[in-house]
Amino acid sequence: MRLLLVNPNMTGAMTDRMAGIARDVASPGTEIVPLTAGRGFPYIASRAEAQIGGALACEMIADHAEGADAAIIAAFGDPGLAGARELFDLPVVGMAEAALVSAAMLGERISIVTFSPVMRRWYLDSVRDAGLSARFAGVRTPDGHAPDLSNVQQSLREDLIRLCNRAVREDGADVVVLGGAPLAGLAPEIRGEVEAPVVDPISAATLQAQALAVLAPQAGFAGRASKPLPKTATGLPPALTRQFACG
Amino acid sequence: MRLLLVNPNMTGAMTDRMAGIARDVASPGTEIVPLTAGRGFPYIASRAEAQIGGALACEMIADHAEGADAAIIAAFGDPGLAGARELFDLPVVGMAEAALVSAAMLGERISIVTFSPVMRRWYLDSVRDAGLSARFAGVRTPDGHAPDLSNVQQSLREDLIRLCNRAVREDGADVVVLGGAPLAGLAPEIRGEVEAPVVDPISAATLQAQALAVLAPQAGFAGRASKPLPKTATGLPPALTRQFACG
Amino acid sequence: MRLLLVNPNMTGAMTDRMAGIARDVASPGTEIVPLTAGRGFPYIASRAEAQIGGALACEMIADHAEGADAAIIAAFGDPGLAGARELFDLPVVGMAEAALVSAAMLGERISIVTFSPVMRRWYLDSVRDAGLSARFAGVRTPDGHAPDLSNVQQSLREDLIRLCNRAVREDGADVVVLGGAPLAGLAPEIRGEVEAPVVDPISAATLQAQALAVLAPQAGFAGRASKPLPKTATGLPPALTRQFACG
Amino acid sequence: MRLLLVNPNMTGAMTDRMAGIARDVASPGTEIVPLTAGRGFPYIASRAEAQIGGALACEMIADHAEGADAAIIAAFGDPGLAGARELFDLPVVGMAEAALVSAAMLGERISIVTFSPVMRRWYLDSVRDAGLSARFAGVRTPDGHAPDLSNVQQSLREDLIRLCNRAVREDGADVVVLGGAPLAGLAPEIRGEVEAPVVDPISAATLQAQALAVLAPQAGFAGRASKPLPKTATGLPPALTRQFACG
Amino acid sequence: MRLLLVNPNMTGAMTDRMAGIARDVASPGTEIVPLTAGRGFPYIASRAEAQIGGALACEMIADHAEGADAAIIAAFGDPGLAGARELFDLPVVGMAEAALVSAAMLGERISIVTFSPVMRRWYLDSVRDAGLSARFAGVRTPDGHAPDLSNVQQSLREDLIRLCNRAVREDGADVVVLGGAPLAGLAPEIRGEVEAPVVDPISAATLQAQALAVLAPQAGFAGRASKPLPKTATGLPPALTRQFACG
Amino acid sequence: MRLLLVNPNMTGAMTDRMAGIARDVASPGTEIVPLTAGRGFPYIASRAEAQIGGALACEMIADHAEGADAAIIAAFGDPGLAGARELFDLPVVGMAEAALVSAAMLGERISIVTFSPVMRRWYLDSVRDAGLSARFAGVRTPDGHAPDLSNVQQSLREDLIRLCNRAVREDGADVVVLGGAPLAGLAPEIRGEVEAPVVDPISAATLQAQALAVLAPQAGFAGRASKPLPKTATGLPPALTRQFACG
Repeated sequence: MRLLLVNPNMTGAMTDRMAGIARDVASPGTEIVPLTAGRGFPYIASRAEAQIGGALACEMIADHAEGADAAIIAAFGDPGLAGARELFDLPVVGMAEAALVSAAMLGERISIVTFSPVMRRWYLDSVRDAGLSARFAGVRTPDGHAPDLSNVQQSLREDLIRLCNRAVREDGADVVVLGGAPLAGLAPEIRGEVEAPVVDPISAATLQAQALAVLAPQAGFAGRASKPLPKTATGLPPALTRQFACG
Repeated sequence: MRLLLVNPNMTGAMTDRMAGIARDVASPGTEIVPLTAGRGFPYIASRAEAQIGGALACEMIADHAEGADAAIIAAFGDPGLAGARELFDLPVVGMAEAALVSAAMLGERISIVTFSPVMRRWYLDSVRDAGLSARFAGVRTPDGHAPDLSNVQQSLREDLIRLCNRAVREDGADVVVLGGAPLAGLAPEIRGEVEAPVVDPISAATLQAQALAVLAPQAGFAGRASKPLPKTATGLPPALTRQFACG
Repeated sequence: MRLLLVNPNMTGAMTDRMAGIARDVASPGTEIVPLTAGRGFPYIASRAEAQIGGALACEMIADHAEGADAAIIAAFGDPGLAGARELFDLPVVGMAEAALVSAAMLGERISIVTFSPVMRRWYLDSVRDAGLSARFAGVRTPDGHAPDLSNVQQSLREDLIRLCNRAVREDGADVVVLGGAPLAGLAPEIRGEVEAPVVDPISAATLQAQALAVLAPQAGFAGRASKPLPKTATGLPPALTRQFACG
Repeated sequence: MRLLLVNPNMTGAMTDRMAGIARDVASPGTEIVPLTAGRGFPYIASRAEAQIGGALACEMIADHAEGADAAIIAAFGDPGLAGARELFDLPVVGMAEAALVSAAMLGERISIVTFSPVMRRWYLDSVRDAGLSARFAGVRTPDGHAPDLSNVQQSLREDLIRLCNRAVREDGADVVVLGGAPLAGLAPEIRGEVEAPVVDPISAATLQAQALAVLAPQAGFAGRASKPLPKTATGLPPALTRQFACG
Repeated sequence: MRLLLVNPNMTGAMTDRMAGIARDVASPGTEIVPLTAGRGFPYIASRAEAQIGGALACEMIADHAEGADAAIIAAFGDPGLAGARELFDLPVVGMAEAALVSAAMLGERISIVTFSPVMRRWYLDSVRDAGLSARFAGVRTPDGHAPDLSNVQQSLREDLIRLCNRAVREDGADVVVLGGAPLAGLAPEIRGEVEAPVVDPISAATLQAQALAVLAPQAGFAGRASKPLPKTATGLPPALTRQFACG
Repeated sequence: MRLLLVNPNMTGAMTDRMAGIARDVASPGTEIVPLTAGRGFPYIASRAEAQIGGALACEMIADHAEGADAAIIAAFGDPGLAGARELFDLPVVGMAEAALVSAAMLGERISIVTFSPVMRRWYLDSVRDAGLSARFAGVRTPDGHAPDLSNVQQSLREDLIRLCNRAVREDGADVVVLGGAPLAGLAPEIRGEVEAPVVDPISAATLQAQALAVLAPQAGFAGRASKPLPKTATGLPPALTRQFACG
């Protein structure tokens, strides 16, 4: 099985890190194809940036869809998810949606804990887009924005554990999602110190993409009625133009 | 007052037509600046196309924001609206949202009538995005997709009137929105034959943009807390890059 | 264009003040017709008072509907709005609904800031009646009820600015509505000190009434299916009785 | 126990009929005080009429509240309910709300069957006002409006039974409410012919008022924080003026 | 009239106490039949316990349904309510649902106050199951779990009054439900000290069961379409097996 | 990895069949432990039956939880899911929830197609319990109830394909779930004839259980705050009694 891990951000180190985690949780026969955006932003954190980044995600999937069994949009917030899902004939999962949906099968009320108050709004949108607002117990973040995102797993470790436990105790969360690519892989490490299951989004997205590729292989997408009509695209990259053209 | 009329589609004739209607309903001192997308699609009709078209709308606004008092995203479905609203320091209205919101002040239950079943899904998304699902009575369309969109106002006139009246009688609509750029300007012409007020989206968007520019002039946006943090964008057009850079 | 500014409260000074603001934001050719209730309450602040005041608003509109292009119910809370909208063949806007709807086109999350905790409940009802609960970030008020409403714009100015900024920072509001007739006209004056656009309800209502009168002129209401059946009214004022009689 | 049966319509025969049914289901010691509106409409059927009729209901309760244990607003659609409940220190029930709430304890999905398509909209509003939309399976009515409401129980009997059974079979209703004063008392008579429990609204309202008077006697309302502040009313009837004055 | 008071908990003293209160509020001719679970838990406080306890409630109703006019599931949280209502041909009320529904007719916003934080989750589920989340203002409880439930009415009396008044003042509750069997009968005693009507659940359930038995007597359930198809049950008690067999 | 496949129905042939499908989609190292209820019903199809069957599911999980990595409640409708999830320290998935959640990652609008109108109600409840009503496009079933469930995959094959395609074309479904154990395994066989991906619930449940066991291993459940307090159970089977005792 071949899964595209599409990072619509430009930070290659983050892609590498997520690819490593994806390989750890995937089945032996699963190949992870990491892709990093060639233009755009270092780290998408708003609707405006996601409008651009989501278009890039579609370009990236179009370039590598051939032979792939599923695609992961590897940015919490899932830029481009609805459009890509409509356009491509294979399962496309978003990191936020996959984490939230997995959490929803582990308990009734879900919280997100993340590394910066700046992300709060963006993550709230993810919950609403996933249709899970009724199961949501809130976002908890440190008060300030960490100057260096590259080592927040170390520098904020104790804060994040405390925030997880406050989400459980004060907000009634049954499960906690550790949101945001900078926290990728932290969940299993703090498990013993949090009073609820803790979900790692890139692991969740990988496992969900793998499950969906079995459950709904590409053959299941042939002849979809919900596919957009063929369209002539002008000025877009060749693979994406072809994708729109075949409808 | 200067209003950008941003058509994220490539069809210049449609832009001209909408600009004409906008000028008809606008106040004497209002200048309408029509803009047509230089790449992308002839006519956006799906989430996938809107992901691309919305990014183009942001580029177009960035290129012309200086000196503008408000911007209209002149495509029913409002591609790029949420991101543009977040990014730019001026009122941005979408054609679908403005029509639906105006209709919501004219009656309790709103229907959309449009020219093709192909648009149904796309328009349902608009209603949900505008947050007005609870006020919505449904989309009604002809059964088939008209081969030539350029003259649907003539070829489908009787069908559309009949659909409007079915929306009123059978679905309980108090107001009907005539959705989609190909129907721009038809509402006032069929008014006498429909048993409810009929709303023309480009007129609604123009009037709302004009109202918001008075109510919330650019000065009101200075120092907005909800603006994204400054970001370095790579590979984007200069004006949009500058916009992201100033945060 | 002729707009009725219907104050269902008995306080003439408030009517005058709102009429002045309405004239300031209206287009040159727009005539504002101020009307003050001849019986009822000095200031409606509850559902019970609104039941009475809303009936008065209907009487007042009936008395002056001839020749009018639209009517504004000039009390935050919009007493009588649903009934008047159903009964009269012209656009009727409410001050709360118009402000909330305008705010909803300026940003995603809306807060109301007002002058007294006594109004909280009444204003929450307005949000629900407008169907915008999903976009609402809360009401913020001073802790106590000001003894003298006539000068709250001065006496509470600093408090109100602080409450606006707390709504933005703590509740995540993108836009703030300054609710309640005693605050009419304050929004433009504190604009520079609030970290979000601030909406003045009477300005919003005037601009919306003006827009709707263009978008849905009286001709558009002829033959409405949603009009109540003709009814014989007994013991009501003559103009309102005639209105019910013509159905 | 003394229950006010407040008919905000002017049709005395309807009041008498409802009072008779109320007496049949009430406990032996319960006194029913029937009241008919002295002005207004023969039969309220719209939001506009309810705005007036609801104000009359408040006047009528104010005139007779002394010594009463609870009040029933005896018109399906519950004009004035929210305001009266806020204003008076005793339980106030509405005929629609009481019927819907009782039905909600008899099964999960509730339908309304009534005598005329004209009432559909008005009854849908009742369901929403009662907060029971999520439990609602729809309104079913005959296609046409019966010319003579005084004998619809006979003339439409077979139609109504058929509509009830279609609500059960096609709409999935578990319980059916027979809405509208002209159908008062019909439910028990057609019980054997409908495949679900059938609820009579005036019986439901009487039984609920009686239950609430035991559960929340007037003593329980003393010192309510949710009571409106005292207000000077001008030009209103004396008892209602006094009620507003005491806050 | 004969009402089953079905306590799916094993604590007989609690059953006796609730039966006493039920007899106090019931009409003279009403017989209360108290039933205590013969196996299961001393006091159900979670979904897991309710899954078992609800099955027991169905067994208990089956054993005593003959000759009964209605059944009360006498545990706040209403274990087994949906299934029992579907299965048996008589009105079945739950203590939580009956209290919440009664409260909803006494005011718009409802709070629950209870004796322990442990019950919070369980009671929130009750509100959602009753479909009244939109009317709900929250649960308030003491911070800690009382070691001895038998005398919480005395030991926590002042705390509970304070919590009720905070629910009113801080959460905007118009009515307070005193949730949980250990508080049965406390409401009337603290009435004078709370700034809102206070509802006693077992009283509410008794009064509602009594009202529904008049409104929807067993004859009204004959031939219900929503009844499950006949099923062969294996290994269940005889009366319940017969009940499933007759469909 | 060891997954319990808990059939709370008594039909062993159905268990065997589902176990076979589960083994086909599971990873090589995954062991499927099939369990069939020893008492209860041949096939659960209502809330009443699910109250009993859900209690049995808890007993069955308690008896085999030791050494298991996750449990599947292998009946569409998920009897006992909420309670089991709360009680046991391992992931528990329901067949309906897992299928709906998986479908929600394959497209926006989901329909269920099943073999009998009798199941409609029960399946609608599943959608609501899963919190996915906003994504739901409806249940479609044949008009009549098939007399013999053992061969519905053959006898109804053409009907079911037609219903799937009507769900897509008429109801706007993007994905179809084939609901009900008698249809287990049919989805992959009709894939080429349906214009949307088709989801097989037992495959979905198996893949989700497997994913969750990696994402949230038992270690992640240690010290969960949301676990019920320890309780003494009386008259329940030993393993379940122990489970409740350890809290």
